[in-house]
Amino acid sequence: MTDLPANVSTRNIKLTVAYDGTAYHGFQRQATGLLTIQEVLESKLAKIFGHRLVISGAGRTDAGVHAYGQVITFPTTGSIPVEKIPLAALGVLPRDIVVQTAADMPERFHARISAVSKAYMYRIYPGRLPDPLLRKYAWHVAKPLSEAAMQEALSYIVGTHDFSSFQSAGSTIRSPIRTIMEATCKQNGQCLEFSFWGNGFLYHMVRNIVGTVAEVGYGKRIPRDISDILAAKDRRRAGYTAPPQGLYLTKVYY
Amino acid sequence: MTDLPANVSTRNIKLTVAYDGTAYHGFQRQATGLLTIQEVLESKLAKIFGHRLVISGAGRTDAGVHAYGQVITFPTTGSIPVEKIPLAALGVLPRDIVVQTAADMPERFHARISAVSKAYMYRIYPGRLPDPLLRKYAWHVAKPLSEAAMQEALSYIVGTHDFSSFQSAGSTIRSPIRTIMEATCKQNGQCLEFSFWGNGFLYHMVRNIVGTVAEVGYGKRIPRDISDILAAKDRRRAGYTAPPQGLYLTKVYY
Repeated sequence: MTDLPANVSTRNIKLTVAYDGTAYHGFQRQATGLLTIQEVLESKLAKIFGHRLVISGAGRTDAGVHAYGQVITFPTTGSIPVEKIPLAALGVLPRDIVVQTAADMPERFHARISAVSKAYMYRIYPGRLPDPLLRKYAWHVAKPLSEAAMQEALSYIVGTHDFSSFQSAGSTIRSPIRTIMEATCKQNGQCLEFSFWGNGFLYHMVRNIVGTVAEVGYGKRIPRDISDILAAKDRRRAGYTAPPQGLYLTKVYY
Repeated sequence: MTDLPANVSTRNIKLTVAYDGTAYHGFQRQATGLLTIQEVLESKLAKIFGHRLVISGAGRTDAGVHAYGQVITFPTTGSIPVEKIPLAALGVLPRDIVVQTAADMPERFHARISAVSKAYMYRIYPGRLPDPLLRKYAWHVAKPLSEAAMQEALSYIVGTHDFSSFQSAGSTIRSPIRTIMEATCKQNGQCLEFSFWGNGFLYHMVRNIVGTVAEVGYGKRIPRDISDILAAKDRRRAGYTAPPQGLYLTKVYY
């Protein structure tokens, strides 16, 4: 496969992508050769566009994390009309990655840099025993959870805060200040679904919040502790990192 | 592992079992050496009961078919109290098979022979594009489906009928007369869920009914055709066999 031709006017394509993250070592290409969503998208979609692709993704989901609304952008000289891309992609991608929508965008639009906010969902399956059909799609919590206590705990997350206490080591250093517009949980069928909407999220931030809020839910902490943990700006004060399989990148806003 | 000791009074254990059928060649042990749910249950649960197990299952689910309420029975001389069985089983079974409940039953109770009726659920994911997270748990139908037309079609299924037209070849010959007490479909979240409750089901009967009713749903047939197909007692008159991954054995009644 050839590189993107130089000195030719290019299109800037935006795709929204849904995937089951179970089989992948996260979204972002790895130097280690471990299989990632980005690599599969680049190598398979190249067949449609006729040259080697380099894509940018809006969010770097971890291994085992899923997406309903990941967004990618890339330049191409390919001529396929956007309305034909989703079905063409279905023909070349594995069944656990699906391109949902495609659009031609202005040159300056970038999946990650242009994003103004993101929404994540986190799903807990509460029950004494696990549901074998949800083992890759929800976190099983055997202890009884108080939804009211967790909702109160989540109310402290909303707003503009220094989220250092909920950031795992391993992220590139940037400002730990983020604004969270929504942090809720509600029963949906047999699961508890947490919704988060914010202008940005630190490394493992959603999983660290959910793990800590779950500790409130089963009575190890009180809701007010979340406020104290935020104020401490110390990762050691927060709780458990909820496992990846309950997390979904649901939407990126521009 | 030794066989069940002879000449010792035995208990008759009933377990309800949930499983993800994706990785298995159906419930029933195969002469071919292909991995089945029955084999895994027999070999893993033997560790809890202390001797080789031979289990009977209520329903022989096919490869890729799931269960929330499969029932098994087996004799044992093991002494574990029933209330400890689910958590003990969790420790020895793979994560895609979960024992939900356990009970000591009278000697004459048998998972299959004592069953008086069974309930199945079949899930369709309707949408122009598939949902990658449901690819193993629902049948993706891209054509638009009329829920009203399918409900009318299902009304012809209810009652006592000769279901020969909806029986696939390969079953052991028995009477093809079955009584279906309930056959409905309704939207649940993003999926269409079919519910069937009957005193028995022929080989592939639910999948053949759903595949044919879906043809009504997208306008290839009219609802009244279901009545004619039943009257014909001819498998060639019915339609497509819906794929296994949308089917769930939900409950066995005694």
